[in-house]
Amino acid sequence: MLVNGKHYRSIWVKENDKSIIQTIDQARLPHFFEIVDLKTPNDVVFAIKNMTLRGAPLIGVAVSYGIYLATLEAESKTNDIKSFKKYVKSKANDLKATRPTAVNLFWGIDKTMNAISKCDTIEDKIEAAFNCANELANEDIESCKKIGEYGLEIIEDIKISKPDSAINILTHCNAGWLACIDYGTATSPIYTAHENGFNIHVWVEETRPRNQGASLTAWELGQSGISHTIITDNAGGYVMQKGLVDLVIIGSDRTTRTGDVCNKIGTYKTALAAKDNEIPFYAALPSSSIDWNLKDGIKEIPIEERNAKEVKYIKGKYKNEIVDVLLTPDNSPARNFSFDITPSRLVTGIITERGICKANEDSIRETFPEK
Amino acid sequence: MLVNGKHYRSIWVKENDKSIIQTIDQARLPHFFEIVDLKTPNDVVFAIKNMTLRGAPLIGVAVSYGIYLATLEAESKTNDIKSFKKYVKSKANDLKATRPTAVNLFWGIDKTMNAISKCDTIEDKIEAAFNCANELANEDIESCKKIGEYGLEIIEDIKISKPDSAINILTHCNAGWLACIDYGTATSPIYTAHENGFNIHVWVEETRPRNQGASLTAWELGQSGISHTIITDNAGGYVMQKGLVDLVIIGSDRTTRTGDVCNKIGTYKTALAAKDNEIPFYAALPSSSIDWNLKDGIKEIPIEERNAKEVKYIKGKYKNEIVDVLLTPDNSPARNFSFDITPSRLVTGIITERGICKANEDSIRETFPEK
Repeated sequence: MLVNGKHYRSIWVKENDKSIIQTIDQARLPHFFEIVDLKTPNDVVFAIKNMTLRGAPLIGVAVSYGIYLATLEAESKTNDIKSFKKYVKSKANDLKATRPTAVNLFWGIDKTMNAISKCDTIEDKIEAAFNCANELANEDIESCKKIGEYGLEIIEDIKISKPDSAINILTHCNAGWLACIDYGTATSPIYTAHENGFNIHVWVEETRPRNQGASLTAWELGQSGISHTIITDNAGGYVMQKGLVDLVIIGSDRTTRTGDVCNKIGTYKTALAAKDNEIPFYAALPSSSIDWNLKDGIKEIPIEERNAKEVKYIKGKYKNEIVDVLLTPDNSPARNFSFDITPSRLVTGIITERGICKANEDSIRETFPEK
Repeated sequence: MLVNGKHYRSIWVKENDKSIIQTIDQARLPHFFEIVDLKTPNDVVFAIKNMTLRGAPLIGVAVSYGIYLATLEAESKTNDIKSFKKYVKSKANDLKATRPTAVNLFWGIDKTMNAISKCDTIEDKIEAAFNCANELANEDIESCKKIGEYGLEIIEDIKISKPDSAINILTHCNAGWLACIDYGTATSPIYTAHENGFNIHVWVEETRPRNQGASLTAWELGQSGISHTIITDNAGGYVMQKGLVDLVIIGSDRTTRTGDVCNKIGTYKTALAAKDNEIPFYAALPSSSIDWNLKDGIKEIPIEERNAKEVKYIKGKYKNEIVDVLLTPDNSPARNFSFDITPSRLVTGIITERGICKANEDSIRETFPEK
């Protein structure tokens, strides 16, 4: 999507130097737009842990590039194919250990490791990793585009009942193009509708503790010229109560085959408010986010608990610098649960690259019969 | 309650100088504990608008002291009883215009204006205002103590089913002693249980945008040595999902005679999560917060919309100063709805100074038959 009028992806191979992967430093947004070089697998590990890059689909592609960078590094640091393989595997394990919740992380690593395992020479393995990462990136973009097209149908239906006024869509966190490669998941129907001339207004829940809604989604929408309003997470229920929301679309870090949706902390409360106000609540996600092994999201999906400092302190711009300010008593404890589970009973439907399914195993399996 | 081991109220008459009212600057908490002098009715107006003091019951008492200060000012600035009355009335109107949602504000002003209207001389009017404010303060403390005693019964019931482990209570915003005069409303059962040797742990929802939970409730609980953990508002649903909450108690800025509870923005989402997880959800409030004229909270209670800057910026401590940091893109719009309505169907009960009632008109009227 656009940044200052120029088209960007969230991750790409540097022009004229395919040993360097580039990404946008999302920890510096919305205040500063800066591009970061990823030269080693450790750079990718650091970027994921530090949330320079985040978002389940982007993480899935980033780790694939991370393995590609590991093959380059292994080539320069090892002398034979056995130690090359061992080196790459150890880096793959480092990449696997960055975040526990997003299924795309494991999926991206497995796909790439599988691709290189089929090659015999180091040269071929490097090329296979590079191609795999590029393919995953392109596939993600195609998925997101498709999600946008299917999601547009929902927006078109809403438009029938209010042809002359703005359609109000609420979203939580950032399941935008920054979280993916382009278009985004939850935002893709929004961008698609906007491109098709629909009058869209987006309520952006700020999404504490890391405020990806207020900092990333609002920035994305602003760059694309889409009308939006930032509210606190607390206010999401109020705007629904007041009839100011027509549709909720959120993303997902992992979805069970039964339609339980794991997403950024607070999604569950937002889903409850949507249900209580009879507002359609959709999760938009590429099928790579579906964990076919899982049946019960609340019991089975591990929820990352991040550093309590992310609750006690918040990052913001002060005198043209990004600083951390303390919000709480110095010695009060805090806990920082990063995701929650929205049970399928609260989910109106799941927008995938293959169409919209109901949030239940039959409907999901019908859409993906090969699984 | 205690601050650094010494007992404080949230507002009091200065020792040895009854022309000065003192309060704690809540906008500086939890980072700095500072006492502010209120010398004129305009000081009170400013303190309320600026949230130096906040909380429905405290506002009710503060405006009463504000009218007392208006009588002192009127005495020095006017020459006859007619202009004295006019002066006080005009200051009463200024005080009324500070915040639109808390019914205690109007109640405190009306009580005090009524008290002084019964006196003939300026001297008597001043004394009546002074006495009225002190009485309202003392009545509030008595109410809060009673709320604590009735609320304790709920906690005692929970203890029966888990005698050996901590009782986990979740609260939103600050309905603590800082919001009242002492004890608090939602916190009063907590303090009472703690004083009675119960093992209590409090989940404190931070309560964006002004973070009264993280800054005030956490500070209060810490000063009283009560175990607590700060979480984002978003995480409230998660801890309930995980079975980590036994009871939710919140305060109220205005409650209809039918039991719809207006409270800090986000309470509605928290109530939905409590309902979804079958966790008892109680509103603790003095009957002065009940608006007997209102039947439908969502339709009838005016919701204050405050400056969007409170969403776009947040206050925190940086290098030993309190600064405002920008959280959002500079040019993204935001809106700042301050309260929401929790419909009575989500409220297990209402803890008042006269006992616990169900959240419906019959039960509330039964508890307050004189209304």
